[in-house]
Amino acid sequence: MPELRENPVTQNWVIIATERSKRPTDFVHPASPRKGPVNCPFCYGNEDKTPPEVLAYRPQDTPPDTPGWRVRVVPNKFPALAGDGDLIATREGFFRGLTGYGAHEVVIESPDHDLALPYQTPEQVYNVLKALQDRYLTLARDRHLRYIQIFKNHGGVAGASLEHPHFQIVATPLIPTEIDLELKNAYAFYHEHGECLFCRMIGAELGEARRIVRGDDSFVAFNPYSSRFPFETWIIPRHHESNFGRISEKELRDLALTLRDTLGRLDEVLSDPPYNLILHTAPLDLEAREFYHWHIEILPRLTIMAGFEWGTGFFINPTPPEEATRFLREVKAEEE
Amino acid sequence: MPELRENPVTQNWVIIATERSKRPTDFVHPASPRKGPVNCPFCYGNEDKTPPEVLAYRPQDTPPDTPGWRVRVVPNKFPALAGDGDLIATREGFFRGLTGYGAHEVVIESPDHDLALPYQTPEQVYNVLKALQDRYLTLARDRHLRYIQIFKNHGGVAGASLEHPHFQIVATPLIPTEIDLELKNAYAFYHEHGECLFCRMIGAELGEARRIVRGDDSFVAFNPYSSRFPFETWIIPRHHESNFGRISEKELRDLALTLRDTLGRLDEVLSDPPYNLILHTAPLDLEAREFYHWHIEILPRLTIMAGFEWGTGFFINPTPPEEATRFLREVKAEEE
Repeated sequence: MPELRENPVTQNWVIIATERSKRPTDFVHPASPRKGPVNCPFCYGNEDKTPPEVLAYRPQDTPPDTPGWRVRVVPNKFPALAGDGDLIATREGFFRGLTGYGAHEVVIESPDHDLALPYQTPEQVYNVLKALQDRYLTLARDRHLRYIQIFKNHGGVAGASLEHPHFQIVATPLIPTEIDLELKNAYAFYHEHGECLFCRMIGAELGEARRIVRGDDSFVAFNPYSSRFPFETWIIPRHHESNFGRISEKELRDLALTLRDTLGRLDEVLSDPPYNLILHTAPLDLEAREFYHWHIEILPRLTIMAGFEWGTGFFINPTPPEEATRFLREVKAEEE
Repeated sequence: MPELRENPVTQNWVIIATERSKRPTDFVHPASPRKGPVNCPFCYGNEDKTPPEVLAYRPQDTPPDTPGWRVRVVPNKFPALAGDGDLIATREGFFRGLTGYGAHEVVIESPDHDLALPYQTPEQVYNVLKALQDRYLTLARDRHLRYIQIFKNHGGVAGASLEHPHFQIVATPLIPTEIDLELKNAYAFYHEHGECLFCRMIGAELGEARRIVRGDDSFVAFNPYSSRFPFETWIIPRHHESNFGRISEKELRDLALTLRDTLGRLDEVLSDPPYNLILHTAPLDLEAREFYHWHIEILPRLTIMAGFEWGTGFFINPTPPEEATRFLREVKAEEE
């Protein structure tokens, strides 16, 4: 019989569809045809094909927008939100709007077109995370902005239009609906129990142990009890902290190791799956220090969201997370 | 500059991404390779390939599970939720679950494998809607169920695994998150204004007129102000009614005309787009007569939901709904 599971963070429900149970080899995803580096705007030598860089880690003797960089951050050429106007409330009779004020940037992970994150060196992944944090802290100074969404799309099915490995940052003038929901539930939990909801959940998952993929002093990677997607994997810091902008050098370095290893395991088990990686953190204008807990959600895109999911908001997951964990634990982690 | 628009029903926001503006011909969607009727479990003569029918409109002299039917309803062979057990709350330490009690049925629209809904006769579409309402009313008698989700997936990209035209019905023991959100906002609006939020919205859309695709005495089809998807189209009854189960014969017949014409226009403009169609109605155990308003949402699946959307809950729509309306109005409606 299928099983319904409640997500303790969003209070949403997931159907674990045992009737449709699927193993890794059942997920046939189209191998994205590789375009290769020709004309890639993110490769060395094509720096003039992007807007001018806003940050780059590069040798001091190289000028901006030339080769030599290790990580390069540029504005998105087709921004979802842009900072070149004012933030103004609009009105069309009954309906309410806002001008699309914000920022949209691309973090190019390395000059190597074909080197996916798990195959970059730990030092390189650390550089990428450092660049994400640098830009986060810079954008956070804009008083019109309320949230900074850091994410990564990998594979065409997951919405990546360019194959050269990159992260994206979108800064919004509103608190996102999903974050708002998490904050409300986390606040209510804190109010009732005097404890962080996420800390409690980590404790419960570590206690159960059946869904833990890996853990070290700083981070735990696990497949949550109420996983919406097959092989959904979260990376969460053990140390309570609401804000990604505040994490230490050591945590960034440890995160590089966990992220690299976890994505490597997913790559191994699912043969280069399309995925979205999403960083959840506290809003800029709300001090949620006690009750929110930043973390990363990795969502492999092996299933299709269809009418039932759109209508209800419930997800159907054909792979119990406990099974996903077994597969992810078994594979040999990448050598470092 | 991009524009942010608030959905008055969910209070969620959409980015209308003018920098990425797209016309119908920009949406290249893979034409699903047609498998054809061979071995199709929904075609005449293959009635034994499905579980036994729970409803069929068929001549009186034909036995169940044989050819001759015009509309046939069968349990889903791989149900997301199933009624063959009890509804029991489960617990795994900190985590909460439920047994997957419910129902999952398939409404086969006609014996013709290749006849999509807009090309069926008005009488046939009426029969389909009548079967949906019949099953709705039957399932509604089960006291363990709280919501009946009626939907249709068209095209592989939209999650249709079988190409023979069909609707699906999933009955759930919980009020879906999305419906719960709509109910809360609609109740708050009613409480404040003494008026149905949806009636007000229909009035506002009819006043603006720029997003109205078609209207008759019973129904209005329009592209909502805060459309999440390119060419998102809603069909909403003018007559205030919370519950699809209660609508009249005449309304079912008028809905057949509106649905047929609206899907026909989408088909014409977007060349057989993949889409999800979702019927929103009041929950079974909550009398929302004054403040909720049943309706249909048609979501063409021409864009990819990626990291930003998953993280924030905000959608990015590259086609302003006013433009979608222009295209949908221009095409000649199907002859009846």
